[in-house]
Amino acid sequence: MDTRTSPFRIRIEQVQEALKRRGLAALLVPSSDPHLSEYLPERWQGRQWLSGFTGSMGTLVVAQEAAAVFADSRYWVQAERELAGSGIELVKIPTGTATHHVDWLVQRLQPGSIVGVDGDVLGLAAAYYLRAALDRAGIRLDTGVDLLDEVWSDRPELPAAAIYEHRAPQAPLPRAAKLQGVREAFLRQGATHHFISTVDDIAWLFNLRGSDVSYNPVFLAHALIDAHGATLFVGDAKVGTELQALLEADGVKLAPYAQARTALATLPPKAALMIDPRRVTLGLRQAVPEGVKLVEAINPSTLFKSRKSEAEARHIREAMAEDGAAMCEFYAWLEQALGREPITELTIDEHLSAARARRAGFVGLSFNTIAAFNANGAMPHYHATAESHAAIEGDGLLLIDSGGQYLGGTTDITRVWPVGTITAAHRRDYTLVLKGTIALSRTRFPRGTLSPMLDAIARAPLWEHGVDYGHGTGHGVGYFLNVHEGPQSISKVIPDPHMAMEPGMITSIEPGLYRPGQWGIRIENLVMNVPSATPENGTFGEFLEFETLTLCPIDTRCIDRGLMRADEIDWLNRYHAWVRQRLAPRVSGDALAWLQQRTEPL
Amino acid sequence: MDTRTSPFRIRIEQVQEALKRRGLAALLVPSSDPHLSEYLPERWQGRQWLSGFTGSMGTLVVAQEAAAVFADSRYWVQAERELAGSGIELVKIPTGTATHHVDWLVQRLQPGSIVGVDGDVLGLAAAYYLRAALDRAGIRLDTGVDLLDEVWSDRPELPAAAIYEHRAPQAPLPRAAKLQGVREAFLRQGATHHFISTVDDIAWLFNLRGSDVSYNPVFLAHALIDAHGATLFVGDAKVGTELQALLEADGVKLAPYAQARTALATLPPKAALMIDPRRVTLGLRQAVPEGVKLVEAINPSTLFKSRKSEAEARHIREAMAEDGAAMCEFYAWLEQALGREPITELTIDEHLSAARARRAGFVGLSFNTIAAFNANGAMPHYHATAESHAAIEGDGLLLIDSGGQYLGGTTDITRVWPVGTITAAHRRDYTLVLKGTIALSRTRFPRGTLSPMLDAIARAPLWEHGVDYGHGTGHGVGYFLNVHEGPQSISKVIPDPHMAMEPGMITSIEPGLYRPGQWGIRIENLVMNVPSATPENGTFGEFLEFETLTLCPIDTRCIDRGLMRADEIDWLNRYHAWVRQRLAPRVSGDALAWLQQRTEPL
Repeated sequence: MDTRTSPFRIRIEQVQEALKRRGLAALLVPSSDPHLSEYLPERWQGRQWLSGFTGSMGTLVVAQEAAAVFADSRYWVQAERELAGSGIELVKIPTGTATHHVDWLVQRLQPGSIVGVDGDVLGLAAAYYLRAALDRAGIRLDTGVDLLDEVWSDRPELPAAAIYEHRAPQAPLPRAAKLQGVREAFLRQGATHHFISTVDDIAWLFNLRGSDVSYNPVFLAHALIDAHGATLFVGDAKVGTELQALLEADGVKLAPYAQARTALATLPPKAALMIDPRRVTLGLRQAVPEGVKLVEAINPSTLFKSRKSEAEARHIREAMAEDGAAMCEFYAWLEQALGREPITELTIDEHLSAARARRAGFVGLSFNTIAAFNANGAMPHYHATAESHAAIEGDGLLLIDSGGQYLGGTTDITRVWPVGTITAAHRRDYTLVLKGTIALSRTRFPRGTLSPMLDAIARAPLWEHGVDYGHGTGHGVGYFLNVHEGPQSISKVIPDPHMAMEPGMITSIEPGLYRPGQWGIRIENLVMNVPSATPENGTFGEFLEFETLTLCPIDTRCIDRGLMRADEIDWLNRYHAWVRQRLAPRVSGDALAWLQQRTEPL
Repeated sequence: MDTRTSPFRIRIEQVQEALKRRGLAALLVPSSDPHLSEYLPERWQGRQWLSGFTGSMGTLVVAQEAAAVFADSRYWVQAERELAGSGIELVKIPTGTATHHVDWLVQRLQPGSIVGVDGDVLGLAAAYYLRAALDRAGIRLDTGVDLLDEVWSDRPELPAAAIYEHRAPQAPLPRAAKLQGVREAFLRQGATHHFISTVDDIAWLFNLRGSDVSYNPVFLAHALIDAHGATLFVGDAKVGTELQALLEADGVKLAPYAQARTALATLPPKAALMIDPRRVTLGLRQAVPEGVKLVEAINPSTLFKSRKSEAEARHIREAMAEDGAAMCEFYAWLEQALGREPITELTIDEHLSAARARRAGFVGLSFNTIAAFNANGAMPHYHATAESHAAIEGDGLLLIDSGGQYLGGTTDITRVWPVGTITAAHRRDYTLVLKGTIALSRTRFPRGTLSPMLDAIARAPLWEHGVDYGHGTGHGVGYFLNVHEGPQSISKVIPDPHMAMEPGMITSIEPGLYRPGQWGIRIENLVMNVPSATPENGTFGEFLEFETLTLCPIDTRCIDRGLMRADEIDWLNRYHAWVRQRLAPRVSGDALAWLQQRTEPL
């Protein structure tokens, strides 16, 4: 790319000119929106629009004479390519950290300088941290700065997709009951009102779904709940009259999206408002009048929705079987087609998505399919495009990470397959990753264990051979909701007490191993926390274990048997027997033959 | 005990009367002193003097109408016994938490009430937390309250033991070089001065040792360092004239202990003072004049002293061999004496301490020996007394946790031995604990891994069978210094970035299993972080592994072979071969025979 004409270089320069005009030393552009979502409506993809970096996480800082994107190892390869020519520096940060850009600012700026940020997309907890750090360095923070509006002439409007109901039987608990549970929780903690901005919490709580962003079946809204009712602040005309009546019957009123701020600003002086500082923006908190008492606590809905009920679990197991059947059909086709017709990473996405679309309850994909051959697999967040993708030919490893949204659950699965002839080095890496997946999958642990404390169990078999992976081991997963859902996460992040493992939580287990320029491996199942019967009958407290939900063969041709212990082989054989038993009734012909072949015991 | 005459009940009532006189709602009595030490000089054993609870950790809160001690599971059995009759409630808190007493206060007290605490024994970080939590609840904190002086008529004076030099070769790095390293660290972080209160940091930094508290070879002092020199605030006459001259030659001046506060109060207005909020009290921080800039950071000495040098490691290995030889002599005697003469837990302490005292470089014990037979072993912090101890007779398990201070290192080892006939249940428990010790001992991990993230690796083999232990898996260990030393700790505590594992750190690995009323098991070795050669040559970053330092057989008669994997037996056999090779040259006769018998391969 001719660096002089990079649109991103020009955009950054425009921001820098605006900074100078306003006397600001720097602008902070978080990858965020008023709901602190991971998947952003286009309107709030300002970091991407300004820098060209398309990763799902990463902060942009524009100073008067420099600009930098802060991203962790999952994004380094991609960010280096996307930022080329923009003049923007890539600052490589450790996974799980989110404050390096603050240090960067503190080191570069003089006391007395002013940093601008749009408080409407800045999380309250992040704002607390930012303000304290800048304060100590004598730097001022102006939280009323939205320069994007100034430089982004064709900035997209808010999405306006229709909202629909998530109904029984897949939504087993009525919204009135969910609202009552949340209400009891905030009343118990001394609050009279509770404000929610996180769109997946809102979708769960009201048994509603939408299509405002890709892959996550959510819609933009805020909610305010008091002792008697609830108000949903949502775009006009997104809720049909019939649904509106159903909501009204459950004590839920609708109000225009933009009135959320006004509602907070007009809270009665004796109110006590519960907000979650990690799940509400500084801008909305600033709208709350002085007299209102703040109760800072995690959203009760975040905790409740993480614990899937047994009724939900039954639907999830069904969705997993449907998803697994789609896999069998797809892989049976793929193995036959390879070498007989041209197959690319894009073809894979098309065929796999089509196989899923034929299954009962399917709504859409849960994220952008990653079909990555050889070196492309070394980029954990790779996505093939029409301009840049690989043909599946010759020898190597094919990594496919994909998932579906079903009315009765959300799936997310990664498998790796051999193409042509593979080497001992491929097998060794594959086997180490598999040992990591198995080690954690079979772990029993005390209820309440903080999820990050389990991370090392998946890594230990890789560490033993001097290898590691830069991403987390697992993320929470929603129920026909976001494929990344909190509060738990099995990773190297500093744990907090809300990450306590509780029955019903669903988490991925997905260790990996990446050799840039060569290949990437990741083996991922979803697992659910279930009570574990122990011979000790509770003497040492309650224990949980993982029920593996994902149903799909794990390739055994890539295994180096010499690295596998007998107990590991036993786990794999039992898993394959279970997969065969569950999926065989749902497939036939080539798909059944493929299932049987790929679930043969090792 | 007749509850009406419990001295502790009377003392608590005296405090409650004083509270009422002063209009205080409650008094907080941390287990702490002006140096935030774990082992407290008697003068600051106020929590113990008031409550009768002798545990090494635990906070006392006295409210006008109630009193409570907050302690974790290590102390529950002991605390229940010691608090009986005092009217003080035992609040059982999870290990690794330290803020339950704050919640207790917030729940009980009305807005507007005042909580008193002696700021001179309250850590600054703890004070930040306490003040913020009480603020939110509208409760005031008065940090100038030392009611102890009022009620404790015969409160002991400050200890006055002499200070001596820790010399080369055991102290390989001269104090001038250590001071220069610390100086460079605080200057680099923008500070002009650095104040240290932690007595082990001071002992390490100045190559001095003392005897002001039991087991830890430290002395009470504060230190103030600037760009040119250092001042040591110590009790008069504790440093002889010869040593005084040596210190002076290295730019170290002496000043009276009580002048530390004055020195802080008279810092020049342009000074920038580095203090560690976790390692300095609120009282001392309050002495600093307004104009002085504060740089809050971990003490550089805490980080430096945790990383033992190769020269120190050589002395440590020597000390471990001496300690191991003492073990052989003691255990050879014990096994012959059992059944032939009356042996109690107290006899064991005497003989074991005598065996250690005969070894080269021995200075004293590193903590109160725990010799605990059967049910006594179920109390992780049990200590036999003349009034209450068990005879070693009949059948069961004998747990011995002990350690020595040598000029060239600090030891800490736990072993469990069979007495008479043991059962399958004993063997099963023992083997699960051993599997935990082995699992973590052989773990390779990336340099910089936060130590708590390794905790689950030791627990997983126990969790698999539904059992667990309430204490941490391991603590950092000093070099001829405190047997509990930070910053690293392998436990369930919320990690902080300073817990990054670095080469040279020494940590214990000591999983356990406790059955109250029956038996307790703990198998403990000390290990040192050493760089790990990996076949990957740094592609995935630097790796560390543990060098096991402790040299002493691990009983194999207690093992249930059916629970051991081949790779675990292999680890144990290699360990025993190494123990035999290292210790055989240092012992003879019965001790050598015992060593050979107990290191036979499994």
